[in-house]
Order: sequence, then structure tokens, then C-alpha cells
Amino acid sequence: MSERILVVNPNSSAAVTRTIDEAMEPLRLAGGPEIECLTLAEGPPGIESQRDADAVIAPLCRTIREHEDAAAFVIACFSDPGLFSAREATSKPVLGIAECGILTALTLGQRFGVVSILAGSVPRQLRYVAAMGLTQRLAGDVPVGLGVAELADAHAALPRMIEVGRNLRDAHGADVLVLACAGMAHYRAALEEAVRLPVVEPTQAAVTMAIGRVRLGWGSRARKSAS
Amino acid sequence: MSERILVVNPNSSAAVTRTIDEAMEPLRLAGGPEIECLTLAEGPPGIESQRDADAVIAPLCRTIREHEDAAAFVIACFSDPGLFSAREATSKPVLGIAECGILTALTLGQRFGVVSILAGSVPRQLRYVAAMGLTQRLAGDVPVGLGVAELADAHAALPRMIEVGRNLRDAHGADVLVLACAGMAHYRAALEEAVRLPVVEPTQAAVTMAIGRVRLGWGSRARKSAS
Amino acid sequence: MSERILVVNPNSSAAVTRTIDEAMEPLRLAGGPEIECLTLAEGPPGIESQRDADAVIAPLCRTIREHEDAAAFVIACFSDPGLFSAREATSKPVLGIAECGILTALTLGQRFGVVSILAGSVPRQLRYVAAMGLTQRLAGDVPVGLGVAELADAHAALPRMIEVGRNLRDAHGADVLVLACAGMAHYRAALEEAVRLPVVEPTQAAVTMAIGRVRLGWGSRARKSAS
Amino acid sequence: MSERILVVNPNSSAAVTRTIDEAMEPLRLAGGPEIECLTLAEGPPGIESQRDADAVIAPLCRTIREHEDAAAFVIACFSDPGLFSAREATSKPVLGIAECGILTALTLGQRFGVVSILAGSVPRQLRYVAAMGLTQRLAGDVPVGLGVAELADAHAALPRMIEVGRNLRDAHGADVLVLACAGMAHYRAALEEAVRLPVVEPTQAAVTMAIGRVRLGWGSRARKSAS
Amino acid sequence: MSERILVVNPNSSAAVTRTIDEAMEPLRLAGGPEIECLTLAEGPPGIESQRDADAVIAPLCRTIREHEDAAAFVIACFSDPGLFSAREATSKPVLGIAECGILTALTLGQRFGVVSILAGSVPRQLRYVAAMGLTQRLAGDVPVGLGVAELADAHAALPRMIEVGRNLRDAHGADVLVLACAGMAHYRAALEEAVRLPVVEPTQAAVTMAIGRVRLGWGSRARKSAS
Amino acid sequence: MSERILVVNPNSSAAVTRTIDEAMEPLRLAGGPEIECLTLAEGPPGIESQRDADAVIAPLCRTIREHEDAAAFVIACFSDPGLFSAREATSKPVLGIAECGILTALTLGQRFGVVSILAGSVPRQLRYVAAMGLTQRLAGDVPVGLGVAELADAHAALPRMIEVGRNLRDAHGADVLVLACAGMAHYRAALEEAVRLPVVEPTQAAVTMAIGRVRLGWGSRARKSAS
Repeated sequence: MSERILVVNPNSSAAVTRTIDEAMEPLRLAGGPEIECLTLAEGPPGIESQRDADAVIAPLCRTIREHEDAAAFVIACFSDPGLFSAREATSKPVLGIAECGILTALTLGQRFGVVSILAGSVPRQLRYVAAMGLTQRLAGDVPVGLGVAELADAHAALPRMIEVGRNLRDAHGADVLVLACAGMAHYRAALEEAVRLPVVEPTQAAVTMAIGRVRLGWGSRARKSAS
Repeated sequence: MSERILVVNPNSSAAVTRTIDEAMEPLRLAGGPEIECLTLAEGPPGIESQRDADAVIAPLCRTIREHEDAAAFVIACFSDPGLFSAREATSKPVLGIAECGILTALTLGQRFGVVSILAGSVPRQLRYVAAMGLTQRLAGDVPVGLGVAELADAHAALPRMIEVGRNLRDAHGADVLVLACAGMAHYRAALEEAVRLPVVEPTQAAVTMAIGRVRLGWGSRARKSAS
Repeated sequence: MSERILVVNPNSSAAVTRTIDEAMEPLRLAGGPEIECLTLAEGPPGIESQRDADAVIAPLCRTIREHEDAAAFVIACFSDPGLFSAREATSKPVLGIAECGILTALTLGQRFGVVSILAGSVPRQLRYVAAMGLTQRLAGDVPVGLGVAELADAHAALPRMIEVGRNLRDAHGADVLVLACAGMAHYRAALEEAVRLPVVEPTQAAVTMAIGRVRLGWGSRARKSAS
Repeated sequence: MSERILVVNPNSSAAVTRTIDEAMEPLRLAGGPEIECLTLAEGPPGIESQRDADAVIAPLCRTIREHEDAAAFVIACFSDPGLFSAREATSKPVLGIAECGILTALTLGQRFGVVSILAGSVPRQLRYVAAMGLTQRLAGDVPVGLGVAELADAHAALPRMIEVGRNLRDAHGADVLVLACAGMAHYRAALEEAVRLPVVEPTQAAVTMAIGRVRLGWGSRARKSAS
Repeated sequence: MSERILVVNPNSSAAVTRTIDEAMEPLRLAGGPEIECLTLAEGPPGIESQRDADAVIAPLCRTIREHEDAAAFVIACFSDPGLFSAREATSKPVLGIAECGILTALTLGQRFGVVSILAGSVPRQLRYVAAMGLTQRLAGDVPVGLGVAELADAHAALPRMIEVGRNLRDAHGADVLVLACAGMAHYRAALEEAVRLPVVEPTQAAVTMAIGRVRLGWGSRARKSAS
Repeated sequence: MSERILVVNPNSSAAVTRTIDEAMEPLRLAGGPEIECLTLAEGPPGIESQRDADAVIAPLCRTIREHEDAAAFVIACFSDPGLFSAREATSKPVLGIAECGILTALTLGQRFGVVSILAGSVPRQLRYVAAMGLTQRLAGDVPVGLGVAELADAHAALPRMIEVGRNLRDAHGADVLVLACAGMAHYRAALEEAVRLPVVEPTQAAVTMAIGRVRLGWGSRARKSAS
């Protein structure tokens, strides 16, 4: 029976889920785990505040428990909403895209820059980077000033993202960029080409690490003997 | 044509390379990159000092340049010897097992413990963890007191590793362990079962991240437009 | 009309709320704000996991919005559940007892020790201390091994708390202690006398700071001109 | 008999003491401690260097010992001169306004900006913030370029303070400001309105915390049993 | 005319000054600066508290100004009392032995241990190490439990120092030790031999750096053009 | 027999060695150690990449072993190539100029700025500063954009260095500068005069510390008893 990674988009936008789903294509390997993307119907159109993030934790954990047959879960929102609750809700691996995107960026540069959506997201992300103990590696976190829905419009979004990327590179000293929204996935290559820095797409980073976790089974013996 | 990840064991021990090779099995996926393990003939029997680590940089970089057809490289020694030189020597991704093992551990616990080989390795690893900006997440680094060759003897090695693992858990507050030598790979499951903490095998962690890098091509556009 | 600080106990234990209420007595000043303590009916009997903490955010924010006539709010659980959501839910000051307890401890010693309830709480608190950027000042976080309900039994709880306090002082180098549960309030004086270190009761610390915020009105002009 | 908090202005400017005294008004509660402000006659007109700060320690400690009937002491200079000496000189609580102002700012924003007086004060304050272990939360420390005496002239001072506040907000990423001189107290509201960030007046922050300490008696049992 | 480094012992113990003076012998080079050691008559018999340290600042700065013909000054007390005031009092280089002892230790090991005199000194030293931004390199700070005067008795002092040194090495992971009192100088070699770790004598470390400063004249052009 | 400090320039440029040799003049004291400067024939013309730095480790260690009669060694390249290997290769003290230059800068200012050669050097130096645990004291690292060879042309180099120095002072908040290349030594005084900040020449800083190590013999007893 095939293993399956469930990628949950905690906002209710099917368009964002489609963007994520397309970004998964290179990671769908013949002998590897299936990768299924799912929209959290109960989520808001976009997660743009702490309240938005906290509000999806309950339905997200419910969804995870309802899909206990999956081999691993990825929470596809850069606030990593409910990540530590979800890890209590299931014995399967759960990975967050902010966590994995940032950790992966550390293999691509010395100081990472975060291309975020709205100014209001910045303090929330600074708290999270600090909780990870990684403030020292953060070059800066600069918002493009567009909400999740507005990101869909490439004419509006891409030029702003490039401007922010250059700012992170030139004024903040970033040598690698992380996209701080799952809905930015389709701009990754264009941004990398324009700014000439490696750009990390965090859902791809998280699913990569999930593939390893599914195949290797780390932690399961620790849990089994603990129970 | 199939993609290939080249895992270079920088010590000259074919036994260690076999251990690594067996650990790669779960990551060999039908549609995924080939994973080839190679012994650095010019390496010492084990890398147990800074001089050992520095001495393999030249042959390691030469080997990498001689295998430019590989899609990515993994340096399979927990000192990550020559990692940054190797990244200058090739335009392909190069990952170190210390780097990837530690970053992966951060998704499995709040404070990681390092099970290292000899007391003399500890300051070298502390410098490296500090250079990564991760000292705050390190619970402790405790040596088992055995060299690379002695690790092969399970009767001697495993009980010592379990003792060190329990010490890291109980006296240092670690909630995840990282094996600090590629030659410890076959003890991973037994250590996890005995200590009841997740245990990260770093070559598996690095090859997992390498699979993603090979499939996703990050950074290549940055490099192309820069040249 | 008199100002009022609403202290919300996010667990459903009326006994814990009574403990908190008694601890408020010295802070009830003739000309100062009223201090009202309220039990969150929807809360669990004790908040002992990340899921417990996350699950109370929605009813907690609802309660805060239903009491908009209060001048300030204190969330009386050492996980500071929903602190940043609550700050988005109201324009009035909201303070968390972990935050204020720890900050106040910094005026009483150079390295603070946390007397926490269960081993499972420690990683959650380490993340929070790190998010505050204060890991460097933390001496240690040691659990007494009792749940919220068991804390009510002084014969069981106080000796364990004293043992943990001495351990934090002697083995971890703490020179001030913080109680990591609102339900420990009535043991503060006895613990201080036994361990001979200052002991911070965090709800008292938070309500003290709330009195200042109510009287001084900081931030209100910033919010008014922003809207 | 009523409790009394003694606020000592360590510079000799009666005008600054009056400014502080007015700022205390909202914290004078019918049933709460009296708040008395005192000018240190032996102090310099303004504390603008390390030598100024160190020179007041002896008379300040003498003054504190001469007022042993007070219930708590606040040192009302942002260099916190003699804070740790004073704590040795009396068994009563002693709080510094830099310490309390900065700790309080941490409840109002993620990164605090310091509005300081002269360029020469900046390294002194950076050392102090580092000693508190809080460098990670500091957005920046920018001087207005005016000495303590010149601060009295609102036409000169306020526009400079607003300019510095905007600079801290826009170029340094501060989301809360701290006034780094007790003599700036009367500009707090205007600065907050102009810059639209919460602004902390540090003597008010310290006296707030002193009210709690007076009412709660923390640490006194630790001291009693130690002697 | 010959250059002269003035080493000021801020306590009034002539015995400690003699100990320092003997420790200077290897640094007295035919063509190098003279090294003169001076007892601060106004100092206490030993500096064992923050008040002791703060109390010597005024006479120390006066002494420095009275010896303006010296080419550099070293403050020979591990509290570095008045270091930053003294730098404002003279345009000549002023170095502190704590500062220079600790910085020098960083070239001899990865984690330094501090052998201090009394338990009460530890928080003061932790604040100083933090102000230097070096907490991450500190293995531990352990007191021998003897005051400055008691240190003179080798039978009492040396065994305690060796015990503390072994504790710092084995339980705290120190790989280099720093003596935290100028009066410990004559025990350096015996401690190093017993504990088998390099031991830094901080007055020697500071005078070494002072020799460089005297010969090289750094900073004098910066000061000249600034005035 | 006279003691001798051997300063090894790991690049093959005799011109750079001459620059270093002239900078040593003030440190050549009648009764002090001889200071001899040597060019590493096997080195590249300039060390401008990680590969350049790693490639000189083997010949550098060989050279050190061939000069075992020297009393101490200084590696005169700001990448401190092979510093930790060299310390394993000889029982004599080995100091790096980056290490000593940065540590010495900490006695001259609160935040140091690094005047480096090429943009590609910056991440390498950031890793090193982080490994030293000193990121918090770093104001910034700004390249002049000239390679080692181009530095010889004062008309090209000095104005660029002054521009970078002013940038570090005004935009990054540096109050002391460190020259990040041994070949910049002859510009030290002019840069200090133009920027009005103390400027550290790192080979002079390292040789100063080496003089102390030679005279004091620290660590030799630790080594003797360990063997």
C-alpha cells in the first residue's frame, strides 16, 4: 500500500491549494510517497493575522486526525499554525513550512531574508524565528504589502516581490530568500532569476523533509517504547 | 538520463562506506535520484582531529570536480570538511551531514544532543554549531570515547552510545539526538529504542535534503544569471 | 465610573480561580482599578499541553470581547494562551502571566529558574522564553511532576516544589524563581522561605503591570491615530 | 502608617524632578503607596557620561540609607546609576528606570527603539542592554543630540524626538519606543501621537513595578531567612 | 624618555600589589615600557561587592589623572571598576583585567571557566560577561568561597582553587580557566599543572595588551582629529 | 638564546610580507622576542576565497613544523586559515590575526566594523565571527571591492577604505574598525585620521598577544602534564 503525505492548506482558497499542488510536481517520484493537497474548508480566505492563524488550529487538528492513514502531514501556511498541537494530535510526523523553509535556507546562504505579505505579519514571524533560536541568521523580514488574495495577480505581485528581494539583498545583506506565503510558489523561479539569490519555496522544502521522514521512520521507535 | 547524488565518505574506510550505503536504502526511490556512495581513497582511516578534517579538503574537492556529472554531492563526515570550499568548486548543490543532521533535528525536538566520538571532537563541533548560530538549541555534546574504527564493534560501541544518549537526555535536557559520525548509522534504531528519543542519522538527513535540491533546482537560476 | 482589570483563568477550575483571587488581595487599592477574576467555563480542568493551550484561544478571545468595558485583561495561565490573538481582539491592554512573571523576575536576579508542573510543559516554555529573546537569562526549567489538579494538595505539592526550587538554585544557578502555574500562588511565601530566593507569583506580576497600563493609557494614542 | 516609594532624581535639576513628579500623578492611588520625588543635591545638572553616572553612586546610596523608612526606591536616571550598589545598601526593593522601562516595552512590541539624548550615551546603553541579555530585542538606539538641560525647551526637543522616533520606526524596525531620559516624560503623549507607536515613560514603568513590590513583599522572606 | 604602564591595584592591600608586581616580571623587557604597580590607598582591603567596586571609581580616576605622564593604565581588579569612567578621564589607553583576561582566554579554548572568589561575585561577573556579549563562550563561574585576604594563605587557597578548576573542567565543560582576582596570580602555574588546562592570569593578559597599545598608538589619531 | 615569533604570510606576495614586516617595527623591543616574517611560497597571490584559505593549510602546517624552534606562530591572513590544524601541529602558541584583531577591537569600542576586501569574503567572515560567539558585537562587514593585489595601489585603495569606514561608522554604528587583510597595514593611520575611529591592524594585535604568550608560557604546563 502506498504511503501518502497530506499537505493541508489552512486557508480556504482553492486557488492557493492549486498553486501548492503544482509546486509539488517535481517531488512526486514513482517509488516515493504520494503527495495530496487539501484545502481546509473552515479556514479564512487568507491567514493574515495571529487570530487567523490561531482560529484554524482546531479544524486543522481535526482534519489531521480524520486522515490518520496518511504517513505524514505538512501545514502549508508560513505561520505554521497549530504545528505543536498537531504533533500532539497524531503520532505521524507533522512539518511546518516556515520551519522547514527557514532551516533549508540555512544550507543556501549565511543570512536569510524573508519576503512576507503584510507589515502585520512581521512581528509574528520575528517571534517565530526567535523561538527557533535563529534570530542571528535573519537578515531581515520585509513585506510586499499585499494580502494572500492579491498575490494571485502576477502583474501586481511579482514586481513588488522583486523590489523587496533586492532590498533584502542590498540593504539587509541577505544571501538567500525565503517566500513567506505558500501562495507565492509560482513566482519562485522568476524571483530567483531577477534577484540572483537562491529562493526557497517553503512547501517544497517541507515536503522534501517529509519524504525523508516517511521513508526513514525516525521517532516511531521512541514513541512506541514510550507508550 | 538519470540524476545521481554522490555521497563521499572522506575517510578511507570501506566498512564505513558500506554502513552509509546500507543506510541509503530507504531513500532509493524508483523515480528518484540514484544514490552512489564513494570512499575517498586519500582520506585517513577516520577523521578524528581538525588536521584530519582539513587534510581531506583538497582530494575531496578534486573528487567532486571529477564527478561533475553528479546532480548533487553529500560530504559524509560530521566535521563537514571542505563544505564551503566544495561549494566554490562546483555549481551543483553540496550538503554536509553535520549541517543537515542538526537542522533536521530542530524539527524533532527543542534541544538537540550530539553523540560524538572522541573528547577532542567536541570543541571543533562547538565552533561549528556556533558558526551556524545554533548554540542556543544545543543541549550538550558528549563523546562516547571511541575512535571511528572502534565504532564497528557493536558490543563495545552500542552500550556506550546508549549511556551517552541517556546522559544527554537526563543531565543535559536533550529531547532529540544526532549521531556525530557517519559510521554510527546502523546503531540508530537501537539507540532510539533504548533512549526513547528521536535519533537523527545525519547522512540520511543530508541525502533527503539533496533529493529535494536535485528535483527542485533552486539556486541554479541565481548562478546562471550571475555568470 | 471605576476602572476594572479582568483576570481570566483559562482553565475551568473554580478552585484555581479562588487561589488567584486571594492572591489579588494586596493589589486591590482604594483608588485603584477593581480586579475581577473569572473562570473560563469552556476551558479544560488544567492546561497541560499545547493542545490545551491552543483550544482555549477561541473562547478566551470571545470572553474578552464580551467584556469590552474592562480596562485591561490578564490571561492567568503560564502558557500565555492566545496572548497575541487577544491583543488583536481588543484595543485594551492584554498581559500574559508568563511574560510578566519572567520580565519581573529579571529585576530580582540575574538567572531565573522556572518551577513548572509537568515534563511535557518544558519544551513549550523553552520555545516561549526563546521567542522573548531571554534564553540567556534562563537558569533552568524543572517540573515538579504534578498536574494542575494535584497542585491543590499542599502535602504533595509543596515538598516537591521546594525540592525543585533547591535544585534550580544549587544545580542550575538560579537566583530567582518563577512559579509556572497560576494555581501555585498560595505556595509562594513558603517556597521563598524554604529556598531563600525571591519567588515571583506571575499573576501578581501581571496585574501589577496592568494597574500601570490602566492608569497611564500608553498605546491608546498610537492606536487612535492609526485608525 | 502609609507606605512610601522614594523616587530619586540623581541629577541636581529641580526642573527635571518636577517633570518626574507630574508624571507620577496617575500612579498616586488613594489606597496605594505615597510617591515622593527627591532631587539629589550632589548630582550634576544632567547625567551625560559614564563619569557622571558613576559619580552619583556614593551620594545616591547615602540618600537611600538616610531614607530607610521608605518602602521602595526608584533611581530615576536612564543610566540606572548605582542600581546594584543600592541593592546592597538596603534590604528594600530598588528599581532602575532603564531596567523597568525596557522590560515594560517588551510587553508592548517585539523590537524596542531607544530615544536617547546624546551620541555619547549610546555605547553605555548598548552595554546595559547586553548585560540584561536583551540585545536581540533592541531595534536601535538613536540620540536626539540634546543634553538634559536643552530637553526642557519643547520647541527644540519635541520635533527632534519625533524625527528620531520615526527613524527608529521606519529604518530600524522598532514597534515600541522607550524614552531614555527621565526629563523627557512630558513629551510622551505627543511623541506617541506623532509616531503612532506606543511610547514607554520609564519612571512611570518603574514606579508601577515598585507599587507591586511594596504591596507584595517578594524577596523579604528570602532575605530574612538568609540573615 | 621611557614609556610607562601604570598598573593600579584598586584595593589597599600592599600584599596583593606585591603579588601583581612579581607577576609582571616576565613582561618587563629591556626596550619595552616600564611597568609600575601602585596600591590605591583609598581602596578597601578587598573588592568583594558591587559597592566595593563602585566606591573606588572616584579615587581611581583621580589617581589616573594625577599620573597623566603614564603611557597606559591597567585596572588590576577583576570587577574592572570604573573602566569606562577612566576612559573618559584620560586620553591614554585604559585596560581592565577582566576584559583582557577573558578576551585572551578565547584564544586558548572554546569555553572558559571563571575561578572566582565569593558566591556574591558571580552575578556581578555574569552581568559583565553578558555586557561583553560573551555569555555563549562562558562554561561556568564557580567561587572558591574565600575573600581576597584569605587568598594569601596557599594552604587554604590552592586546594580549593584546584577543586573549583576540576569542577569547571569536568562538570561545566571548560577548556581554559581565568583567575578572577589579581591576588591569585602566584597560583597560576600550580593550578595549570594540577588541572591540565591553560590558566589565564588576567593582569598579565592586560599588561600584554597594554604593551601593544603603548607601542602602536592606536586611537590617538582618532582622538586628535576629533578634538 | 633569543626567542622568536614567526609571522607567516600565507599568500605568496613578498610585497604583502614587506608591508607586514614594516608594521612589526614598533613591536621589536630590545629584550623582547625577535619577530620574523615569512612568505608561504606555496600560497596563492592573495587569499580571496574559502578554497584559497583551505588550500594553504597543508603547506602552512608543514612550514610551522619545519620551524619548531620558533617560540610562537602568527598566521597573517584574516581568514585565519588552518588556525586549529596548526594548533594540533605544534605545542607552541599559534595565533590568528582575525581572532586577535577582533578580540583587541573589543577593548576599543562597543561595536566593531570590518573593512574587508571582496564581497565574497563577507559570508566567510560572518561564519567566523559567529563561531567566535561575537555576532552581537559586530556592527557590519563591508567590502572595499578590491583584491589583495589591488590593495597595493594607495590611490585606488585608500579612498575606498575611507568610504567604507565612514559607512560602517554612520550607517552601521561601528565605533571601532578592524582591517580585514594583512596587506592593508600601511593604511591604518590614514584611515584612523580620516574616519576618526580607532582602527585595529590585526597582525600587530596578534603579535602583541604572541609576545605575552612567549614571555608567560601559559598552557605549556597543561600540555606537559597531559602527555
